Amino acid sequence: MRLTTGYRSVNDGSTALERVPIERRDLRDDDIAVRVDYCGVCHSDLHRIGGALGEGILVPGHEFTGTVTAVGAAVTGFTPGDPVAVGTIVDSCGGCPMCKAGQENYCYEGPVTTYGGTDRVDGTKTQGGYSREYVLREKFAYRLPDGLDPAAAAPLMCAGISVWEPLRAAGVGPGSRVAVAGLGGLGHLGVKLAAALGAEVSVLSRSPDKAADVHKLGAADALVTTDQAQTQAARGRFDFILDTIPAEHDLSPLLRMVALDGTLAVLGYPFPTTVRILDLVQGRKKLTSSGTGGRRQTAEMLDFCAELQITADVEVLPSNRVQEALTRLRRGDVRYRFVLDLSDLDQFAL
Amino acid sequence: MRLTTGYRSVNDGSTALERVPIERRDLRDDDIAVRVDYCGVCHSDLHRIGGALGEGILVPGHEFTGTVTAVGAAVTGFTPGDPVAVGTIVDSCGGCPMCKAGQENYCYEGPVTTYGGTDRVDGTKTQGGYSREYVLREKFAYRLPDGLDPAAAAPLMCAGISVWEPLRAAGVGPGSRVAVAGLGGLGHLGVKLAAALGAEVSVLSRSPDKAADVHKLGAADALVTTDQAQTQAARGRFDFILDTIPAEHDLSPLLRMVALDGTLAVLGYPFPTTVRILDLVQGRKKLTSSGTGGRRQTAEMLDFCAELQITADVEVLPSNRVQEALTRLRRGDVRYRFVLDLSDLDQFAL
Repeated sequence: MRLTTGYRSVNDGSTALERVPIERRDLRDDDIAVRVDYCGVCHSDLHRIGGALGEGILVPGHEFTGTVTAVGAAVTGFTPGDPVAVGTIVDSCGGCPMCKAGQENYCYEGPVTTYGGTDRVDGTKTQGGYSREYVLREKFAYRLPDGLDPAAAAPLMCAGISVWEPLRAAGVGPGSRVAVAGLGGLGHLGVKLAAALGAEVSVLSRSPDKAADVHKLGAADALVTTDQAQTQAARGRFDFILDTIPAEHDLSPLLRMVALDGTLAVLGYPFPTTVRILDLVQGRKKLTSSGTGGRRQTAEMLDFCAELQITADVEVLPSNRVQEALTRLRRGDVRYRFVLDLSDLDQFAL
Repeated sequence: MRLTTGYRSVNDGSTALERVPIERRDLRDDDIAVRVDYCGVCHSDLHRIGGALGEGILVPGHEFTGTVTAVGAAVTGFTPGDPVAVGTIVDSCGGCPMCKAGQENYCYEGPVTTYGGTDRVDGTKTQGGYSREYVLREKFAYRLPDGLDPAAAAPLMCAGISVWEPLRAAGVGPGSRVAVAGLGGLGHLGVKLAAALGAEVSVLSRSPDKAADVHKLGAADALVTTDQAQTQAARGRFDFILDTIPAEHDLSPLLRMVALDGTLAVLGYPFPTTVRILDLVQGRKKLTSSGTGGRRQTAEMLDFCAELQITADVEVLPSNRVQEALTRLRRGDVRYRFVLDLSDLDQFAL
């Protein structure tokens, strides 16, 4: 058994975390050990820590970058010292149609999530990247490309791939008219990636205050959705709308802005929703969703980001300020992703 | 004013119709007059006649074939004696993005429906094809291709185009795995057209009793949806499911059978529905719908049907038995579409 330090929820209904010693498994033949350097703070962490998703005590964190410190006997892809990135899943069955298609994120047996999941070999619960060390199968680790800042790259592994997959599935590219609703962790990377793919990108926002930022992210314009004249004029304007709004909302106004044969991808609020089928009829529109990404597309996204120098806009905090990050994230006070620097945990090395 | 005879709802909440004299407008320059020979009985007629869709007194009927009897001064596409087919819409604005894209069915100003609509020129209410004559702009009439039986071709104009558009939008062709849920007017044409496009087609049915028929329609097999073993085995099997079930139903079991990046097209029940977004997440699936068709695709479908000799399986009744048709349609007792022969109305010629 390996010992490290991390942050674990106290399971009192709040988002309180406590710094605790954490056990990691001894390396199996196909495992690598990773020193976690930077871990992003995902909006879903808030739900999981608070228990809203039915989870009890856990160590959050599923988008991190770090450095390989040890490798199992059969590992061929990594050696100690390699920079790596890890996302939301760390194992899958490998044999179902989804795994065979490179979509381990939709594994029929359920992918093993990076935290709160159940290890396929020993049945232990997985503990996430809010900790100084992580152990996983090399198959689910990715080499962090040279030239990407490791702190700013960490959010690519959840927020980034979560928008990359639907953008690619919809064939977004030059000539595409894309809108992004909700300008948080996912949304701001949606703007960057869609623009980098060649699309003309608009931001849909309830308030005009973020309008200045959107050009820096690569958007052509911002559309204030509370301004009826603007939304009326945008009827049928977008081939693809990436909806990252993390709360329940009416899909009709968004569907109205979708073009003939266009798509609304609902990513931010993946819960049962009432859909007016007639909203889909009028223009033969599509409603879709997706969940993070498979290995093939994750690697593809990292290459793309390295080539175009795309990372998240992040605010890096030492990990002992994780509570502040969660509190501010809850009220939307971050542009656009908090990333924890785990190096301060070294002082608690066991 | 021209006088003819037809069937009009009595608006007492039942599906009762009465035979009455009906006025048609004098021909405008771009109008044609059509002697209605055969008119299909659509499931939506039931809802409209009964007032469930908020409509009062009306003359139903929006899929018919007939013969041109007179043409306006500026008509260039038809001459008296031409066989024609008419569908669910008879006018549109012509200037909006949808009309310009050949999708007059999604006209931003609302297409003028064949019955219960409002004429764009004189504001009168349109009256449908349960009558011996119809007058419309030539632009919305289609030449009935040689070799198609006019009675069996009538349902192509609503049921046929309603399934043709989504099949084409989804790119269904050789190699596609298609399922059709609900084997009525739309469903049986969905099977025929998908098979003719080269797809491998399955029928999803609650009861095994229709299984014998499906091969005749062109399906490879039938899957009994009440048999859990069969539905379990069909997880992720279909690239495209055409859902023509005309009543409220849970979409989850159907979405489960959709493949990665596949599509569920909900056509039979276009009302607000609860969608579990997680059903879309697991395999990046798409939910869509559509409503009949535009001029371009309607003409394309007619050409395709003529070339492959595809028509509906119909039961033709003299129009004075329309009440029997409605009663039996309500209980699903038809394989697969009733068509009224309007020639018996000639005895009431005025």
